Amino acid sequence: MKRRQFLQAGGVALAAGLATPAIAQSAPTVRWRLTTTFPKSLDTLYGACEMFSKIIAELSDQKFQVQVFGPGEIVPPFQVLDAVSSSTVEMGNTASYYYIGKDLAFAFGTAVPFGPNTRQMNAWLTYGGGLDLLNTELYKTYNVTCLPFGNTAAQMGGWFRKEIKTVEDLKGLKFRIGGLAGQVVARLGGVPQQIPPADIYPALEKGTIDAAEWIGPYDDEKLGFVKIAPYYYYPGWWEGSANGSVFINLAKWAELPKPYQQMVTTAAAQVAGDLLAKYDARNAPAIKRLVASGARLRPFSIDILDACYKATNELFAEIGSKNALFKRLNESMSAFRNEQYAWHQVCEATYDNYQIRQLSRT
Amino acid sequence: MKRRQFLQAGGVALAAGLATPAIAQSAPTVRWRLTTTFPKSLDTLYGACEMFSKIIAELSDQKFQVQVFGPGEIVPPFQVLDAVSSSTVEMGNTASYYYIGKDLAFAFGTAVPFGPNTRQMNAWLTYGGGLDLLNTELYKTYNVTCLPFGNTAAQMGGWFRKEIKTVEDLKGLKFRIGGLAGQVVARLGGVPQQIPPADIYPALEKGTIDAAEWIGPYDDEKLGFVKIAPYYYYPGWWEGSANGSVFINLAKWAELPKPYQQMVTTAAAQVAGDLLAKYDARNAPAIKRLVASGARLRPFSIDILDACYKATNELFAEIGSKNALFKRLNESMSAFRNEQYAWHQVCEATYDNYQIRQLSRT
Repeated sequence: MKRRQFLQAGGVALAAGLATPAIAQSAPTVRWRLTTTFPKSLDTLYGACEMFSKIIAELSDQKFQVQVFGPGEIVPPFQVLDAVSSSTVEMGNTASYYYIGKDLAFAFGTAVPFGPNTRQMNAWLTYGGGLDLLNTELYKTYNVTCLPFGNTAAQMGGWFRKEIKTVEDLKGLKFRIGGLAGQVVARLGGVPQQIPPADIYPALEKGTIDAAEWIGPYDDEKLGFVKIAPYYYYPGWWEGSANGSVFINLAKWAELPKPYQQMVTTAAAQVAGDLLAKYDARNAPAIKRLVASGARLRPFSIDILDACYKATNELFAEIGSKNALFKRLNESMSAFRNEQYAWHQVCEATYDNYQIRQLSRT
Repeated sequence: MKRRQFLQAGGVALAAGLATPAIAQSAPTVRWRLTTTFPKSLDTLYGACEMFSKIIAELSDQKFQVQVFGPGEIVPPFQVLDAVSSSTVEMGNTASYYYIGKDLAFAFGTAVPFGPNTRQMNAWLTYGGGLDLLNTELYKTYNVTCLPFGNTAAQMGGWFRKEIKTVEDLKGLKFRIGGLAGQVVARLGGVPQQIPPADIYPALEKGTIDAAEWIGPYDDEKLGFVKIAPYYYYPGWWEGSANGSVFINLAKWAELPKPYQQMVTTAAAQVAGDLLAKYDARNAPAIKRLVASGARLRPFSIDILDACYKATNELFAEIGSKNALFKRLNESMSAFRNEQYAWHQVCEATYDNYQIRQLSRT
């Protein structure tokens, strides 16, 4: 079927219909559409959608087809949630925190400053009550349910034209950074900017902005920032992990045969695991290439991190005093993160830090 | 069907058989048996098998059933590979490194001393060529193929009756530790012991052994070692991560309809992600309970870790000079680990270490 015809047909098509014998009714032909925020150029995030579609087709012996649409093909990139909510499409891949304009609580579905690391985020979502809380208290009111769809792992702090050595250096800094992190930066005198990916390079080149954060080495490399803003800071304290989401329209979900629901759940889990492994595998050689191309790695100073940490806590207390769900999610996530790090520091961090120590000797 | 009847029937049962119309042939009724090394008492590892079985049933609308058998029900715990290899069962869950008696290269499917951490292991298996190398060069010669089935994360170093402060203290130490790690300990004068889990407690209590390693806080807690060997060391340098495996008989795999193959692959991936999240979520409160019960947390000293690291490299060089596949796997895994840690130390470790620093302030 051509894309145009498919667009017109849309929704659930029971192609086999009445001619099918009763025995096959549990496996009807179903066609769903998945729209994603992320462009094809991100083979990581867009690739996850393609992988998802392929797995579902294989699992269902090609009976359940999920066609993937890039940003702008059906709806613009940041209207994925609305498109799923209104049943324009059955499902959409995006990051929950793009929708904090509707409710700041959406941040907790992706990342908040100084949040849990990747494994801790997965554990909070699955076994810490995080996903249940988000689904029942937040997403449900938008007619959607959500599954984790993979994590980018800890992100880099972005590309800076000049070195940032003190908290003072943040004052007046025009920094392309969004969401709650932007609000934290603003509290320290920075000037957060919201610029679509394609416009970042010219803005950095002209000096319209001083810095820009994106994702991590592998995805960042494609945008070529190293040539014009070579100071590459770490860690991205606002995205110690960043969880992607697939939103599913609740009415469409209810219509889906149970085995197909399980296919969606299980395929999303496979995609999530694969995406993290892919990020880890791709980022490691990418950072080497970036350094070879002139990237100058710089850690944010402890003073800067401390100031951002303090500003984050103040901001979150303010928001929480007005938004009960934000407060509840923040308390749940923070308590879980603290308990996790108390354990992480014993075994995992000791092991990692010893390995890093050995690396410096070879 | 009762278990006894099921045991007698075994294998693939085409229950629907000839009476089924052609349209349903792609979804035949299939019954497989999965035997696992791990006892029911480990709700983590055994629970993963039960979850796997349930997912497969849901995905296939109950047509593909995988029945789980504990250790001793069909074969003893450490004959899982042989049972799958000989087609006694279609599939088995175990740890590859239990089979180093056949070939030391089996270690790389689970864990080797100072190997990659959990995320790095997943990335090596999936995107670093690890699983392909193991499947094509090693497992295939045993008539099996393998899928990752979840990781315990970094394990603890075990329970000691007395403190171990220097390398000298390892001399004569009767330590329940297996595999290659045991060989490393032996090089430093220790006396590695192989004791089944049920016999560890009395051996520790009587002083027949001085120390025993098992898994991590949540699983260890159940064995009650804290009462008799309270010094709880970290990290388990021989298991910075430990990957579980599901082995599948190659001939049975080839017989499986393609959608069912995909179900096995995708369900295993979901189980793997879930198990790690479960370990992370369960270990954090368990270590607190253990400390409250009298566990005394102790890090292995840098001197001890350095001595073990050196002994590991010497041992691996010796084995590699006689075993080409061991050498090849070691080179692949070590190169990948080193590249990963070079990246990990930039962003991930900086983020984690800052969070740990904050934790100590609250």
